[in-house]
Amino acid sequence: MYSVDDKGKEIYDLAEKIFPICRSVTGKGVRDTLDILQDYINQDGLRFEIREVPSGTQVFDWTIPKEWEIRSAYIEDENGNKIIDMKNNNLHVLGYSVPVDKWVTLDELKEVVYTQPDQPDVIPYVTSYYKERYGFCMSANQLNSLPEGKYHIVVDSELFDGSLTYAELVLEGRTKEEILLSSYTCHPSMANNECSGPSLLCALIKYVNSLKDRKYTYRFVLNPETIGAITYLSKNMDHLKKNLIAGIVLSCVGDDMDYSIIHSKYADTIADKSLASILKHKDKYTEYSFLTRGSDERQYNAPGIDLPVVVFCRTKFGEFPEYHTSADNMDLVSPEGFQNSYDTLVQWINCMEKNEKYVINVFGEPQLGKRNLYPTVSQKGAHSGVMAMRDFIAYADGRNDLFDISEIIGVAPYDLLPIIDQLKEKELFKEV
Amino acid sequence: MYSVDDKGKEIYDLAEKIFPICRSVTGKGVRDTLDILQDYINQDGLRFEIREVPSGTQVFDWTIPKEWEIRSAYIEDENGNKIIDMKNNNLHVLGYSVPVDKWVTLDELKEVVYTQPDQPDVIPYVTSYYKERYGFCMSANQLNSLPEGKYHIVVDSELFDGSLTYAELVLEGRTKEEILLSSYTCHPSMANNECSGPSLLCALIKYVNSLKDRKYTYRFVLNPETIGAITYLSKNMDHLKKNLIAGIVLSCVGDDMDYSIIHSKYADTIADKSLASILKHKDKYTEYSFLTRGSDERQYNAPGIDLPVVVFCRTKFGEFPEYHTSADNMDLVSPEGFQNSYDTLVQWINCMEKNEKYVINVFGEPQLGKRNLYPTVSQKGAHSGVMAMRDFIAYADGRNDLFDISEIIGVAPYDLLPIIDQLKEKELFKEV
Amino acid sequence: MYSVDDKGKEIYDLAEKIFPICRSVTGKGVRDTLDILQDYINQDGLRFEIREVPSGTQVFDWTIPKEWEIRSAYIEDENGNKIIDMKNNNLHVLGYSVPVDKWVTLDELKEVVYTQPDQPDVIPYVTSYYKERYGFCMSANQLNSLPEGKYHIVVDSELFDGSLTYAELVLEGRTKEEILLSSYTCHPSMANNECSGPSLLCALIKYVNSLKDRKYTYRFVLNPETIGAITYLSKNMDHLKKNLIAGIVLSCVGDDMDYSIIHSKYADTIADKSLASILKHKDKYTEYSFLTRGSDERQYNAPGIDLPVVVFCRTKFGEFPEYHTSADNMDLVSPEGFQNSYDTLVQWINCMEKNEKYVINVFGEPQLGKRNLYPTVSQKGAHSGVMAMRDFIAYADGRNDLFDISEIIGVAPYDLLPIIDQLKEKELFKEV
Repeated sequence: MYSVDDKGKEIYDLAEKIFPICRSVTGKGVRDTLDILQDYINQDGLRFEIREVPSGTQVFDWTIPKEWEIRSAYIEDENGNKIIDMKNNNLHVLGYSVPVDKWVTLDELKEVVYTQPDQPDVIPYVTSYYKERYGFCMSANQLNSLPEGKYHIVVDSELFDGSLTYAELVLEGRTKEEILLSSYTCHPSMANNECSGPSLLCALIKYVNSLKDRKYTYRFVLNPETIGAITYLSKNMDHLKKNLIAGIVLSCVGDDMDYSIIHSKYADTIADKSLASILKHKDKYTEYSFLTRGSDERQYNAPGIDLPVVVFCRTKFGEFPEYHTSADNMDLVSPEGFQNSYDTLVQWINCMEKNEKYVINVFGEPQLGKRNLYPTVSQKGAHSGVMAMRDFIAYADGRNDLFDISEIIGVAPYDLLPIIDQLKEKELFKEV
Repeated sequence: MYSVDDKGKEIYDLAEKIFPICRSVTGKGVRDTLDILQDYINQDGLRFEIREVPSGTQVFDWTIPKEWEIRSAYIEDENGNKIIDMKNNNLHVLGYSVPVDKWVTLDELKEVVYTQPDQPDVIPYVTSYYKERYGFCMSANQLNSLPEGKYHIVVDSELFDGSLTYAELVLEGRTKEEILLSSYTCHPSMANNECSGPSLLCALIKYVNSLKDRKYTYRFVLNPETIGAITYLSKNMDHLKKNLIAGIVLSCVGDDMDYSIIHSKYADTIADKSLASILKHKDKYTEYSFLTRGSDERQYNAPGIDLPVVVFCRTKFGEFPEYHTSADNMDLVSPEGFQNSYDTLVQWINCMEKNEKYVINVFGEPQLGKRNLYPTVSQKGAHSGVMAMRDFIAYADGRNDLFDISEIIGVAPYDLLPIIDQLKEKELFKEV
Repeated sequence: MYSVDDKGKEIYDLAEKIFPICRSVTGKGVRDTLDILQDYINQDGLRFEIREVPSGTQVFDWTIPKEWEIRSAYIEDENGNKIIDMKNNNLHVLGYSVPVDKWVTLDELKEVVYTQPDQPDVIPYVTSYYKERYGFCMSANQLNSLPEGKYHIVVDSELFDGSLTYAELVLEGRTKEEILLSSYTCHPSMANNECSGPSLLCALIKYVNSLKDRKYTYRFVLNPETIGAITYLSKNMDHLKKNLIAGIVLSCVGDDMDYSIIHSKYADTIADKSLASILKHKDKYTEYSFLTRGSDERQYNAPGIDLPVVVFCRTKFGEFPEYHTSADNMDLVSPEGFQNSYDTLVQWINCMEKNEKYVINVFGEPQLGKRNLYPTVSQKGAHSGVMAMRDFIAYADGRNDLFDISEIIGVAPYDLLPIIDQLKEKELFKEV
């Protein structure tokens, strides 16, 4: 009933399409990415609203930066051999690098090249958003192998007054209470810590759209991390503080190793309770405190904003060695990983939609036998099959919601959904 | 002062008298049992009120079933040898079996005989209350040893419009606040999980009756499990919701192995706190969550009823292998077991009677020395004997009741009673 | 900025000066001690108020005892050899001993001599405040080595209507909210469990006096234990209940082994939270419950008084073998121990003075980069240096005080003080 098919492959393919694009916090890379995602949801007749916010706009304590256009970046030696070229891997250029075109010595070169010495085979991902610099990234092994000589360093880029781009889509429900799903579009070619989030988010848009008679209104947001979330909040904070009941930031959702939640600031919101309630029934599961935060939950939970937003990761950013390097490529993620992430969030949405404080409408235990919900012969050991239903009923006294009952009785919340359906069918719930 | 003598043997003898009776949720077995118990409490001039509720009466979500009369039940072979006969053990007949009188093959016989394959020596206890069936119970070993052939199966029983029988007795106290003690009378010949509860309950009736100037009103109830409790609650729920402060269901109270509490739904009532406070000072002690419930606490704690009721067991039902089999006989229980159970509940009653939020009526520590409550020479190691009193005083600030203080200072609540008496005598408590 | 120099030696020297005096709960010993301490704080122009309360005065449930004057006490043998003499160690006389001058047999002698059999080398400290007795203390080894014979026992003492002496000093702050620091002056020559507390307290008086623009009013009290605290509270309870926000009793603060807190009655006051917050970042740290209380926290926390007062010890009284014996001498304490105790309480005072519920005055994370509080190149591993600041900001949302944030983010509260200064300088806090 709640199963899904082949979604994992579909999401993987979408992530693969946006992988090669050179994104940054602003610019053409973001817009090209959103175009591809737009095509995907258009299959179901849906469209993101695309917003552009001009450079220089004040957003809370921050200012929208200039837009960055990068046309090419490379280093060549005296013989005209390209040592590195961002055509091969767009991590080779320092994010937001200013233009340069000159010949330097090997020593001078080393001052503008970033490496990851503890992982000498990989190209690190490095940016300089808020100070104007130029620079390159390469593997430590490659840098160490370069001979003395002259090197021609070229960055053909431009910083200019443009705009910051983000996308949002709202699917209305029966109530104004909102659920937020958010991810980010600002890193160049990295698979898990970039492409996985927006791709899964788009698949979830289609799922939510397919739900008839939704209880909640769903808000989907794709923005550049940090500055984008701040921009978004500067325009929507009051609305969200009034209506948002739970939000999840999607980050690193394409591998198939762990299931992780990063809790909100005090780990005490419905978002925390509900997502943890799902994840704790997975084979592997890690709860992280807000002290390990790193994506847009930082802004959603910041002082004065205080929204109920957590992060869902498979393996948490920073916890896998490929993180923020060229090794975070399409081999790190998989259709199985995406399928399992999708299934998990579909479970979460289904549980949220049915989340209520249920109240049984009879006094004492209902007689399950006369409703064919109970075995008619009583012998020891015979009842275990109906224990989940009986335990659910025992705590359906108006004090607990679905996730509370799940926690008390030790049964996954999604396994309680068919029980709720049966009890509803037998008209055993009080109208609330 | 609070000691008791030879009660264990007296309770054991009473249990032994009611052991042979073939009880079920309704019928003559229940009435015969109550007659014997009535005789016992009549020794102290006390009488149960006996209530009869007609078959077909709607009680909350349930209906009082037809009354079951069982006259005989046996299986004989082609030679007229009785294979089993309920005259020898009344577990041999399926509870609420409808009549049958016919010859069957061994294969047909096996379809209507219940065994406990994991305990091949015992006769299991099996019932079919809410669907009309006939059947027999025997040991797996016996069934497996039967040769091919024809068998004569006979149940001479009747299901007819009669009534369900329960007993109640109220001993009034100074206040309308009530304490409930309840047990059940609906299983055939089983000692711990049937006879022990009503027998101990009757001894406690005598004890409470002997208490001069009781603070609380005590309500004692004996009913068939589940349907009886539901019936009782359908008539007394409003009164109990208004007046009940703590209740205990007695079940399996005759062995001498463990001391157990099954907590109420949220383990947060005075009943939970007070009984656990007593039991945790026993040598062996087990706390069970409400998820392991099984007796009438299910109804007392059900949604909409929500009464502060726990269960007291020695070894909890389901936790001893003899449970719900013919091995739960008078060898499983003992005078020592009954004596210790009786002493424990007398401790509980005594502590409940003296439970208050005590407040010392002087500022700072009272000078115990001038009241001869403290050694006059001060050397290290000299004070341990009065530490319980000093600790009691430190927390007698109006915030804690007897059980709270016991928990904080680690002294059993019944060991605080003589301290309270001393402090009362010295007029160190504030009137409240 | 918050460092101190050579205080440890200064406090040690002060403790050494008061060590030889024979103190008791009343009398010349207390006054001589206070004179020395008065001289020390007079160096900074400060004076204790000295209060005298007459014998016989009723203080809550107690009565001020007669004053005890002890002139000499010794035991000599038939040859006139002094077996013991309080000139050599003032523990030799039972505290509050009445006069005696007679010859006794060895057996009679043993009835009035106290020893510590489990520590046969030491002289125990023993008193008889509230019953009139005479007696002597010596090592078990010495008593056991005494030959048969006659012994001359002499106590030249007097109990007379005098007064109980205590000292207090108040340093006013910007607010009427008070911090209490208290210690006791009633034991004879013991170093850690007597001299250390008043000596450290006087050094802290000087420190608090040096603080310009104090937020809190500081109250320093030196009284004989128990009866002195009761006397003090009988005169100041209402004022303290209105104004006191946190108090610490200093006891056994001169050794350098452990850092200990004895919690208040429910361990739930600002005093508990703040002192524990400091101590848990020490290398060694022990939390004791109020059940292990022993000094004037007993009175401050007694029913009806209920003030937020904890105890600070290095090694807690009763936890070191030298406690209440002649082995608690100036070798047990050290300048290093005093220095570390002083530094700890200075940290506590500094943190209390800056304790507020801080609130960041921007929405979302503040941009630290533009304020030169953040590195401008973003690469993994680059941010750890600013994590304490970012974590502090995340929880500076008006819900938490300094100690709450310290607990949440795992950074010592005193390490947050420079961060608070930086954020104040950048005007990032909301005015409250």
